[in-house]
Amino acid sequence: MVIDHLGIVVTSIEDGIRHWEDVFGYRQMTEVVVNSRQNVKVVFLAKEQSITVKLIEPVDEASPAYRLAKRGGGLHHLCFKCENIDRELGQLTQKGLRVLSQPAPGEAFENENIAFIFAKQGLNIELIDTDKKAMRRF
Amino acid sequence: MVIDHLGIVVTSIEDGIRHWEDVFGYRQMTEVVVNSRQNVKVVFLAKEQSITVKLIEPVDEASPAYRLAKRGGGLHHLCFKCENIDRELGQLTQKGLRVLSQPAPGEAFENENIAFIFAKQGLNIELIDTDKKAMRRF
Repeated sequence: MVIDHLGIVVTSIEDGIRHWEDVFGYRQMTEVVVNSRQNVKVVFLAKEQSITVKLIEPVDEASPAYRLAKRGGGLHHLCFKCENIDRELGQLTQKGLRVLSQPAPGEAFENENIAFIFAKQGLNIELIDTDKKAMRRF
Repeated sequence: MVIDHLGIVVTSIEDGIRHWEDVFGYRQMTEVVVNSRQNVKVVFLAKEQSITVKLIEPVDEASPAYRLAKRGGGLHHLCFKCENIDRELGQLTQKGLRVLSQPAPGEAFENENIAFIFAKQGLNIELIDTDKKAMRRF
């Protein structure tokens, strides 16, 4: 599995898009999608030869992104793409990692399965299947 | 400028290397280098088709990585590589970003200049010149 994109929490997704376009030269690649399972709005931005970025704005206090947004936002998680999410999840739990949310459809990925794992050492990671990258483009 | 690597704080650089090798399939690309300006030990790890990772262990309380290590570690900064660090820094400060440390030799990059910037929205970024990537390999 390899890192597909970075999850970055912002207090306002519109301000975040402007910031990443203006300061870092990224461009918006998808519409803003509401993920009702994580209680977040998300959008993907890309730049040639650079890693894809997903901006995340919590929609309420129940969101796992809420606490970081309250502190002003920042780096939130790494998303790894893998061949088989269930097999990978089995291997990661065998290594002692803890599943935060089991594979379930993610609206930002056209309802393909995503999962979240606490990867120890302060890292939260997301898992998606390899072929989802093309599906979330405009 | 494009993202070159991720800076991730760990409480123990040896444990961090083992974790990234065992769990994520990365491999150590450099020796562990002490950066006396930032009061950190750093090491680079890489994996094919995935973004390079720099693990950072603070050596004392004066390190900017100390607070995050006390909380157990986690994602710390994004490092952008650019053509001309001074010109890029000028453009970023014109956009209202604040320089945390001016360009100065970084031991982990064979004494080439690096700089740190607070990029707003909770993001700290590092700047390096484009041609440094090859220099820090074994």
